[in-house]
Order: sequence, then C-alpha cells, then structure tokens
Amino acid sequence: MNQEELIKKTVESVLNGCTLLHDMNLKTALALIEKVEIKAAEMGVNAVVAVSNKAGHPIAVHCMDDAFMGSFDVALHKTYTCVAFKRSTEELGKLCQPGGPLYGIQYTNEGKMVVFGGGEPLFIGDKMIGALGVSGGTAEEDSFLAAYGKDILKEVLSCR
Amino acid sequence: MNQEELIKKTVESVLNGCTLLHDMNLKTALALIEKVEIKAAEMGVNAVVAVSNKAGHPIAVHCMDDAFMGSFDVALHKTYTCVAFKRSTEELGKLCQPGGPLYGIQYTNEGKMVVFGGGEPLFIGDKMIGALGVSGGTAEEDSFLAAYGKDILKEVLSCR
Amino acid sequence: MNQEELIKKTVESVLNGCTLLHDMNLKTALALIEKVEIKAAEMGVNAVVAVSNKAGHPIAVHCMDDAFMGSFDVALHKTYTCVAFKRSTEELGKLCQPGGPLYGIQYTNEGKMVVFGGGEPLFIGDKMIGALGVSGGTAEEDSFLAAYGKDILKEVLSCR
Amino acid sequence: MNQEELIKKTVESVLNGCTLLHDMNLKTALALIEKVEIKAAEMGVNAVVAVSNKAGHPIAVHCMDDAFMGSFDVALHKTYTCVAFKRSTEELGKLCQPGGPLYGIQYTNEGKMVVFGGGEPLFIGDKMIGALGVSGGTAEEDSFLAAYGKDILKEVLSCR
Repeated sequence: MNQEELIKKTVESVLNGCTLLHDMNLKTALALIEKVEIKAAEMGVNAVVAVSNKAGHPIAVHCMDDAFMGSFDVALHKTYTCVAFKRSTEELGKLCQPGGPLYGIQYTNEGKMVVFGGGEPLFIGDKMIGALGVSGGTAEEDSFLAAYGKDILKEVLSCR
Repeated sequence: MNQEELIKKTVESVLNGCTLLHDMNLKTALALIEKVEIKAAEMGVNAVVAVSNKAGHPIAVHCMDDAFMGSFDVALHKTYTCVAFKRSTEELGKLCQPGGPLYGIQYTNEGKMVVFGGGEPLFIGDKMIGALGVSGGTAEEDSFLAAYGKDILKEVLSCR
Repeated sequence: MNQEELIKKTVESVLNGCTLLHDMNLKTALALIEKVEIKAAEMGVNAVVAVSNKAGHPIAVHCMDDAFMGSFDVALHKTYTCVAFKRSTEELGKLCQPGGPLYGIQYTNEGKMVVFGGGEPLFIGDKMIGALGVSGGTAEEDSFLAAYGKDILKEVLSCR
Repeated sequence: MNQEELIKKTVESVLNGCTLLHDMNLKTALALIEKVEIKAAEMGVNAVVAVSNKAGHPIAVHCMDDAFMGSFDVALHKTYTCVAFKRSTEELGKLCQPGGPLYGIQYTNEGKMVVFGGGEPLFIGDKMIGALGVSGGTAEEDSFLAAYGKDILKEVLSCR
C-alpha cells in the first residue's frame, strides 16, 4: 500500500464507521485466539495460543486446559520471532539449520528465537500488525493452526 | 477440608452436573479477567491482567489497549510471587522493606518476585487454586483491582 | 480415568486406609530416589537423582558422593523437561536433532530443556504425577536408570 | 585446628574405624536434613531443607509436603550464601541493609545471595565443611531451624 492508497483506505474506513487497524489490539487478538482454539479443540490439540503486536510485545495468551506447561514460553516466543524477522518460524527454521545461511540466529535475541513451525506474522495488506504463535500439538499441527489463524485474520477484523 | 469432606463435595458436585475446581482452568481464568477488565475500564486504567494456576504457571494474560509495555512482566510475575509464598504481593512487600524480616526476598527466585500491590492468591475454601496479577495503574489501583478480582472469584465459578 | 472412575478409586483408596497419589510427595520421591541410588551404586555410577512434582517443581534432589558437579543442573532440568512436554528427554532428543521436526526446542524455556536420555515422566494410570531425572553416568546409563525408576514407581507407592 | 592436631585427629579417627569428614557427603547431609525435618514438623513448619558442600554446591534438597514453591530457590541459595562468605545469612543480612558496610552484596553473585535468616555454615572444628539452608516458616522459624541443624551436626556425624 502506498501513501495515497493508505489515506484513501483510512478515509473510507472512517466513513464506514470503523477504524483501520494499524496495530494489534486486544479485541482482535481475542477474536483470533478464540477461532484458533475452536479449531484446535476440533483437532484434539490442547494448545497455547499467543498474539503479539507489531512491536513483538504480547497482547494476549491463552493456555487451553491440559496444554503442555512448556508451551507458554514456546507460543509466546514464536510471536516474538515472527515479528523480529517478519517471517514464519517454519521459514526461519529452514534457513538456520546447521550449514544453512542463517545458522546461529536461534542463539540470538536472548533465547527468544523459536525456529520450528507454529508462528506466523499477521499482515493487513503489506503492513505487519503483529504475530500469532501456537504450541501444543506436533510441529505439523502447530504449523497448520498458525497458518489457519493467519488466513482467517480478515474474518475476525470488524473493519477490513 | 478433610479427606472425607473432599470426597463428599466431589461426589455432590458431579451429581449437580459440574466439577469442583481443584486448579485454575482457562474458562474460569477468562471469566475472572473479563470482570477485572470491565472494572479497570470504569476506573480509566489500562491494565494487564494475568491468571496463573496453583503451580504458578500462567493460564491467561490479557493486555488492555494502551497498557504499559512493562506491565506484562509485572502482572505475570505478581501471579508467580503470590503462588510462591501463598500471600498477596502487598503483604510480602511490607515484610521485605529494608530492616524488615524478609528484606532480600525480592532478589530471590530469579527475578520473578514482585513486592508491591496488585497480586492476590486465589482460594476456594482453604485451597489455593492459582493467583491473579494486575498491573497498569497506580499501586493503589492495581491493589484495588486484584482484591476486587479475588472477591468476585466465587461469582465467576460455575460450581462453588 | 473418567470422573466417575476417579471418584470410585478415591473412595476405595480412602476405605483401604490410604490416599491415592495425585501429585508427587516427599515420601514417594525419597523412596524412588533411594532405589535408583542403590541401582546406580551397583553399576558403579555416581549419580545425581532428582524428582519433581507434576508442575515441574523439584521435590527432592540427592547428589551421590563424587557425582559430577555439573549433574545437579542436568538432573533437575531433566525433570523440568519431562513435565514440560510429557515425554522422556530421550524421546524429545530424537525430535529436536538438526533437520528434525522440533529442532530448536532445546533453546526454549530459558535454558531448562535437556534433550538427551535420563529423564522420564512418572505416571499413575494416564495421569502424570511428576518426573524423574538422573545424571552422572553415560547417556545410556542415565537412560537406563531413569527407565528403571519409572518402572519401579508402583513398588514404592504405598497405595496403588 | 592446627596441622599437628589435624594429623593426630585423623590418625585417631582411622584407628577408631572411621574417617574424619573433610567435606559434606550425602549420608551426613541426609541425616542432618532428616533431623531438621522432624523439628520443623513438630513446629508445624513445611520447610525446604538444603545442604551444600564446602564448595557451595548442593548435596541434597528436600521439600516437605505443602512447602512454599518459592522456598526451593531460597533454601538452596541460603547454603550458597553461607559458603560464599563463611557466615550465616542472618549475620550477612545485618551488614547489607541500606547504609550498612556491605550494602549491595545482595546484588552480587548472579542473584544467589539470600540475606535473611535461615542459612548457617557448617563447621567441624574451625573447618567449614558445607552449609545448611532452611526456608518455609517465618524468618524467625527458619533461623531457629538452621541454628538447630548447625548445633546437632556433631550428633549426626558417625565420626567426630
């Protein structure tokens, strides 16, 4: 989105009685988390689901009953990792394997890098507004749930 | 509650179609957080509200819009502190002032001790089931909100 | 175990003059540690043996004479790891090798993940009541001793 | 004890069929912890009791049922503090109050300094062989129990 388009879109959204989201807020985070929790429950996964804002600071974290105790740290830091490098944890994980171009990035940022699937940055247009982190299932299940959350972000936004 | 009473109460609660809460769960945590957020909004406080289980592990954390970025850590660790020593952060704070009997306890437990108001352990009868941590207002406001949450715990429990 | 079975079992155990163990206690932890120490001594291993409760908090740790100084941290954190993800450290270690689905999980949870053999979660039926961590021998010896402890848990429980 | 006396005492103890203790061992640590636990139970205190060797490394830690979760760290680090500066935590606490001669020592040694009562160095003659740390009651109760443990060390040693 260029400057002109952004202004046009902002004016439109105000006229439509709502405000364009420039950064994650609690209402949106909770709506997104709720949808991911419902999907996780359907899959039989007890997940920790976290949402951070575009600064990588947590907005909301929910631990479903019987989620792994160790998943709080993992879900939270998946959001940090996504915001830190504007990509999914799965993608970063491919780049930082031994021999890979970013090998070692997992040791940076004070232990907050998570480099396996389950974290996705959240975008409106081309602007990152935060990130979603899911932990509790297999790496495949966590990746699926994070991608699901990313895809339905539009639905949970009252103003698009 | 002795063993016999506990069994009696457990059987009763199952017959009544509900389960006695022995440890914090997500549903209860969210119901409690929601009530504290409403009260905080009435007071004009943008709070971070956290609930942990009886082991001190976080169950849910919500950051109200425009809450202090530094309050996430504070609210979360207020719950840890309350569980760690089974008392409010305000009470512990009085004991650990310079010259006080527990001066120095604030430096233990790897930086997770918070020794000013805003954290309350949560009890059902004489059993601690978790803790509530609030951060974002003045120490007085945080203390008020945590005490408020502690007092309305019974209301938010579906089974008492 | 469903709710009904749990109540039945609890009532039965009280009638039998003993209490069903829902979480690790000191008496059980010490009985288990003692048996593991005897086996370790037979094998010529000077081990650190640790037992945590179901929240991952330590209940007892013993360092046999001439155990490695570095093994205290390792044994303790093996119990944490097992509780955090409800599996043995050996199993987690296989999943987090370079190229594996959970590569990188060893860097999460603030340095408390141990991903080689010697840690086992402890179950009664399908309920995890804690974990056992052994460190001091080779990885094979530690794995053997942890598995041995897991297997004899039933023997050391006064009520089964 | 000077060199000559030490040799004389060592020879005597060998002739008596036992070895003079130069450093804490597991057997002695457990015997001491057991006595402190019995006294704590009499007083109605659920304590964590820890014993370290003369290097400040833990030899054994026991958490009595229903002890404060936060007391593990406190008891363990009380032993570290005592060994680190060869004095009780209570004595160090008096020296490091704001305005005191050692104010600030509580912030050294990577968060392992505890500066209120409940830790005592353990001596045989004038040789420090380790330390005892107790946490779980009031500061007064912890101080009493640690002093009690220090005083009965001779009793629990098979060779004196």
